[in-house]
Amino acid sequence: MTHLVAIGGSDAGISAALRARELDPTVDVTVVVADAYPNYSICGIPYFFSGDVKPWQSLAHRTHADLEATGMRLRLDTLATSIDVGGQRLTVRDISGAESQISYDELVVGTGALPAYAGIAGLEQLTPADGVHVIHSMGDTFALDEHLTERDPKTAIIIGAGYVGLEMAEGFTGRGIQVTQLQRGPEVLSTIDPELGALVRAEVVRHGVTVHTGTTVRSVEKTAAGLAVHAERDGRAVTHTADLVLAVVGVRPNTALLEAAGARLGAGGAVVVDERMRTGLPHVFAAGDGVTTHHVLLGSTYLPLGTTAHKQGRIAGENALGGSAQFAGSVGTQVVKVFDLVAARSGLREHEALAAGYRPATTEIIADDHKRYFPGAQPLSIRITGDTRSRLLLGAQMVGRLGTETAKRIDTFATALFAGLTVEQVSDLDLSYTPPLGSPWDAVQVATQAWSRTHP
Amino acid sequence: MTHLVAIGGSDAGISAALRARELDPTVDVTVVVADAYPNYSICGIPYFFSGDVKPWQSLAHRTHADLEATGMRLRLDTLATSIDVGGQRLTVRDISGAESQISYDELVVGTGALPAYAGIAGLEQLTPADGVHVIHSMGDTFALDEHLTERDPKTAIIIGAGYVGLEMAEGFTGRGIQVTQLQRGPEVLSTIDPELGALVRAEVVRHGVTVHTGTTVRSVEKTAAGLAVHAERDGRAVTHTADLVLAVVGVRPNTALLEAAGARLGAGGAVVVDERMRTGLPHVFAAGDGVTTHHVLLGSTYLPLGTTAHKQGRIAGENALGGSAQFAGSVGTQVVKVFDLVAARSGLREHEALAAGYRPATTEIIADDHKRYFPGAQPLSIRITGDTRSRLLLGAQMVGRLGTETAKRIDTFATALFAGLTVEQVSDLDLSYTPPLGSPWDAVQVATQAWSRTHP
Repeated sequence: MTHLVAIGGSDAGISAALRARELDPTVDVTVVVADAYPNYSICGIPYFFSGDVKPWQSLAHRTHADLEATGMRLRLDTLATSIDVGGQRLTVRDISGAESQISYDELVVGTGALPAYAGIAGLEQLTPADGVHVIHSMGDTFALDEHLTERDPKTAIIIGAGYVGLEMAEGFTGRGIQVTQLQRGPEVLSTIDPELGALVRAEVVRHGVTVHTGTTVRSVEKTAAGLAVHAERDGRAVTHTADLVLAVVGVRPNTALLEAAGARLGAGGAVVVDERMRTGLPHVFAAGDGVTTHHVLLGSTYLPLGTTAHKQGRIAGENALGGSAQFAGSVGTQVVKVFDLVAARSGLREHEALAAGYRPATTEIIADDHKRYFPGAQPLSIRITGDTRSRLLLGAQMVGRLGTETAKRIDTFATALFAGLTVEQVSDLDLSYTPPLGSPWDAVQVATQAWSRTHP
Repeated sequence: MTHLVAIGGSDAGISAALRARELDPTVDVTVVVADAYPNYSICGIPYFFSGDVKPWQSLAHRTHADLEATGMRLRLDTLATSIDVGGQRLTVRDISGAESQISYDELVVGTGALPAYAGIAGLEQLTPADGVHVIHSMGDTFALDEHLTERDPKTAIIIGAGYVGLEMAEGFTGRGIQVTQLQRGPEVLSTIDPELGALVRAEVVRHGVTVHTGTTVRSVEKTAAGLAVHAERDGRAVTHTADLVLAVVGVRPNTALLEAAGARLGAGGAVVVDERMRTGLPHVFAAGDGVTTHHVLLGSTYLPLGTTAHKQGRIAGENALGGSAQFAGSVGTQVVKVFDLVAARSGLREHEALAAGYRPATTEIIADDHKRYFPGAQPLSIRITGDTRSRLLLGAQMVGRLGTETAKRIDTFATALFAGLTVEQVSDLDLSYTPPLGSPWDAVQVATQAWSRTHP
C-alpha cells in the first residue's frame, strides 16, 4: 500500500491529501501539521477580528473529524525538520521535543510562507506579549485576540496596507480601535494601480483610519509610553506610537526544509516546481505558498495565493499517485473587500507587462454597474491593459462598491486571460444583461471598447 | 457623401447609426423610427410598472437631443412601407398618412420583432381599451399605464411566465394587484431546466402570485363580469377572470419589409443574414430581433436578445460604410431578476445540445456564493451541461438570490463557452476569491468539478 505523506496543514497539504484519498481510497495518507489547526482558512482571520466570524472554530474549511472521515491520518503539533530523500524518510519533532521518523513512498511538501519583516528592526524580537503582532497562523490569531480582549488597546498601528492590512484596518475600526496605517509605497494596495488605490484609500479614510503613505518603517521599539514605530517619510524621520502594532508587510516562501533536502530555488526565492508540481527530487512534490507558480502570461513566477495553493495541492496529490495532471496556470486574479468597496485585478499591470516583454498600454474608464434608470446604479472604475502589438488582453483592474458584482466581473477578465483572448474579443463576448444587474454592453466591455478606441 | 439609412429606432437601428457616425463623422445618417420614442430600453419597461423607474423618459438609453448631437437625423412617427432595392430607395408613410421616398446609399434594417399571439383567439382583436395588453413598445406602455392609473384594476392575468411575464408579475404585485400567471409548459421560465424553474416559481408564489403551469390558453373574451381567459389544463377546460389581461407569450420576427424586398427567411422565420449582417440584397444590411443569429455552438439560429441587437447593429453600421466586421456569435446568455432571485443561463441545455448533435450530460449542484463562515452566505443552484465526448462545456444555468453575483458568475461560463473551453478548463480557471465574496474553488468550479466526477 502506497504511503503518501503531506507536510503542511493548510491549503496545499490538505488539498493534496484530499485528492489522493478521493482518487484512491486504499492509499495511506498522513498529513504532518505543525500546529493543532489543520485546514483553517487563513484568509478568514481578519473576519474573526471584525466579529463577522464567530466562533474561531468556524474558520476551519473542514473540521478535524471531517478530515479524518476521508481516511487521512493527521499528525498534529508535529514539525517536519528534515527530509532524507534517498531513504524516503522524514524526521519530525513533536510538541515535547521528541524526534521520530516517518517513511513515505511519495511526499508532498506544502510548508507555505512565513511573515516577512521587510528589514524592520525589532519586529523579529518583539512578541505578542510586547504588543507586536503578525497574523499568519491560528497561534498568531489567538495571541492577538488575547491582547484585544485582555488589554483593550485604544490605538493600533498597522504596518502595511495590502490585502490583510486593509482587512485588519476594517476589523480594528469596527471594534472602536483608532488605526494608523503606514504604507511604504505611494498609495495603499500596491497590487493595483495608484489611480485605483486612491479610491481604496478614500474608503478607509472615510471610515476613520489615518493613512500615511510614502512611509518606510525602520524599527519598532517598546517604550514606557507604548509602542513606538520609527519611520521615514519625505526624507524626514517620524515616529508614531500606539498600544498595539500589527505588521503585515508580505510573506516569504518557507523553503528551509526543501532547500536542505537539495531542492532548487527560483523566482522570489521559492522552491522551483514544474507544472506537475515536481521538485526534481525523486518522490518529492511541492505546492502552495512555498513554491514557484506557473503564470499564463509570465511563465515561472512567485505569487502566493490561496486559490493557487488549492489547485497546486490537488495536482500534487494526484501526481504523487502516478497521475500526470498539470497546473494550468495562474493569471494572478485577486480581490479584496475593504469596508464597502471591492478592489480586484487579474493579469498584468502595465509595468509588469513591460518587464515581461509586452508592448502594453492602459486605459481607464468609469461605467455604471447596471442601467442608470434602475435604482442603485454605482460607478465601476476599470483599467484595461492590452498589448498594442498582438492586441491580447494583458490585465484588468476594477474598483466598485460592494453589491456591484465587481468580484465576479473580474472573473470575466480572468477567463479571457486564461483563454488568451484579445481585448476586442472581450468586447465581442455575449455577457448577461438585465437592467437591475447590467447593461447591454456590460461595464467590462465599455472598458475594453474604450481601450480599442484609444489604441486603434 | 454617403447616405446611410437605418430603419428602426431600437437597439439595432440606433447602434448602426451611432457606429457609422463614430467611424465617419462625414457620413449622412437618417434613422426612420415608427414611433416617437427612439432608443428606449424596452427591457426596462417592467421597472416602470414596478415604480423603480420614474419618469418614463428615463427609460431612454439616450435622449432625442443626445442622438441628434451625434449628427444623425431622426425621422420619427415614420413607417417604412417598402424598399426599392434596385433603386436604393425607401417608401415611408408619416403620421398623417402621407407617403414619401428616401434615397439611400446603404440601408440597415432593424425592424425588430412583434408580439406573438401563440394562436390565442381574441388577442389580436381585443385592445387596451378592452383591458387586454401587450408590452412591446412605448405606445403599449402608455396604454397599460393609463389603464392602471385610470381604472385601478385589482386583478390581472398574465399569459406567459417567461422573462417579461415574470418581471411584470413582480411589477403588478408591487402595486397591490393580485396576479394569476398562466404558463403553457410544465414550469415557469421555460428557458431554464424545470429543476431550476421550480425555484423561480416558489419565489413568485412566495410573493403572492398564483401560478398555473401546464395551462394552454385558447382564447380571451370580454364579458360583462370582466375579462375571461379560457384555457385547457390537465385535459379539462378552465376559465380565469380578471380586470386586466397581459399577454407576454414571446415574439416573432418582423420581416414583412425585407421579405417583400426579396430577402430570404431562415431559422424561426427570421431574415437570413451572414456574419457581416448582409441580407444578400445589394446595399441592404439587417440586424436585431428580425434576423437570424450566429450562435457559437449552434450556427444559424433565431435568438432575439437586446445584447445581440446592440452588437449586430454596430457591425451593420460599420460594414455599411465598407467595413468587414463580423458578428463573433452569441452563446445565448440570459439573466432575469424575479423578486429577490436571479436566474441565468448561457450556452445550451441538454435537449438543445442533443438536437445539435452533441453527446451532452448534465449535473446539478448547490454551492455557497461565499465562505459559509462569513455572514450572509447563500446557496447557488448550478447546472452544468458538457459534452461527454469532447468534454467541451456546452452550457450552464444558475439560480441564486439577489446579491450573490449570479448574473456575473454566468459570465464566466459565457466567456468559457465563447472561448471553447472544456469543463475541466473551467475548473482550472484562476477565479477571484475573498471570503465575503467567494470560495477558494468558486461555486462555478464546484459545479464543473462535480460534472467531471460524474462523467469521468
